[in-house]
Amino acid sequence: MAKHGKISDAVIRRLPKYYRYLGDLLKNGVNRVSSNELSRLTGFTASQIRQDLNNFGGFGQQGYGYDAKNLREEIGKILGINKKYKVIIVGAGNIGQAVANYAGFYEEGFEVMALFDKNPKVLGLKIRDHEIKDMDELPQFIQEHHIDMGVICTPKEVSQEIADILTSNGIKAIWNFAPTDIRVGNDVAIENVHMNESLYTLAYYYKSKQETK
Amino acid sequence: MAKHGKISDAVIRRLPKYYRYLGDLLKNGVNRVSSNELSRLTGFTASQIRQDLNNFGGFGQQGYGYDAKNLREEIGKILGINKKYKVIIVGAGNIGQAVANYAGFYEEGFEVMALFDKNPKVLGLKIRDHEIKDMDELPQFIQEHHIDMGVICTPKEVSQEIADILTSNGIKAIWNFAPTDIRVGNDVAIENVHMNESLYTLAYYYKSKQETK
Repeated sequence: MAKHGKISDAVIRRLPKYYRYLGDLLKNGVNRVSSNELSRLTGFTASQIRQDLNNFGGFGQQGYGYDAKNLREEIGKILGINKKYKVIIVGAGNIGQAVANYAGFYEEGFEVMALFDKNPKVLGLKIRDHEIKDMDELPQFIQEHHIDMGVICTPKEVSQEIADILTSNGIKAIWNFAPTDIRVGNDVAIENVHMNESLYTLAYYYKSKQETK
Repeated sequence: MAKHGKISDAVIRRLPKYYRYLGDLLKNGVNRVSSNELSRLTGFTASQIRQDLNNFGGFGQQGYGYDAKNLREEIGKILGINKKYKVIIVGAGNIGQAVANYAGFYEEGFEVMALFDKNPKVLGLKIRDHEIKDMDELPQFIQEHHIDMGVICTPKEVSQEIADILTSNGIKAIWNFAPTDIRVGNDVAIENVHMNESLYTLAYYYKSKQETK
């Protein structure tokens, strides 16, 4: 892989979409793809796509396009999804269970090691062969199993506290589904998922389309 | 509200974050807020924030800042979340149930009218007082109740088919959680939520931070 400098957040956020569509193409037996075809699929312009991929040395050839398999592998390497990640989920309600049950999660190397909750009603229940454990066991479990990533699916009132427990026990990546922005140190990667923001954006476009009728 | 022209998607996607933080400030008794303070909260630059809000005529006053309540209301109006939306959820698995159970959804005027599934095991179960209905009842229910918005929480293999049923019965807004991009006509608003893309982005930043240690 070509060495690359600092890449903008906007580019990084487009790469997973390329990765996903290239996977779909390969499943359909398509091995070569042009930037125009990627543009049709992703909705980004062809020149945007070429520019994005040039950031990494460019994997295309003029008049040939991109080798879908090679391009997908390179993007996977850039994103770091060609490795194994040990994951725990804190909060075993609907969202925690949805994450644990989501098959795509496992296919890409993210291995859920355990779920944790403090609700006595769900303790001991099994989700995909994983027993829901008591929150008290959290620090020891993280340290013993060298957990890479924590998924926070708790109510927002306790989410920061949970994040602090995760990071103080060595976790360096947090995927947060609680509807608040969690703060972490500079050495920790965080993605705050805000479903509400997606919903409000949808409301805006719905309203706009109604008004222009 | 000031009339405004076409606003870029990037601006629209930042508005929900302002809306959320302004709500938090008001809950904490804060009535006046500067662009610098909003910058500290949101992570956007103060000049970006002033520029965004200027798109709508600007609600701030030099040396005073923004009136948090007024600004939040105006952003709510722009986003269209000051109205009532009638919502149905198709697919009553973990994600469908999580959406139905999410209290924030109701507070902002999004009223879940029913859930639908085709799994006989869940038919008749109640989620928040709503019985899970059979998929066969979907077209009639949409038409009878003038449903505005459909949330798709089905496997991706059937998601496009479901979207077609929703839109052909008059639904004009779709919130899609199936891990694929659904295509709809120009008169329909759509938000495709891709949890995987957020996860891959997290993996990238995790990897980057590990490498720079």
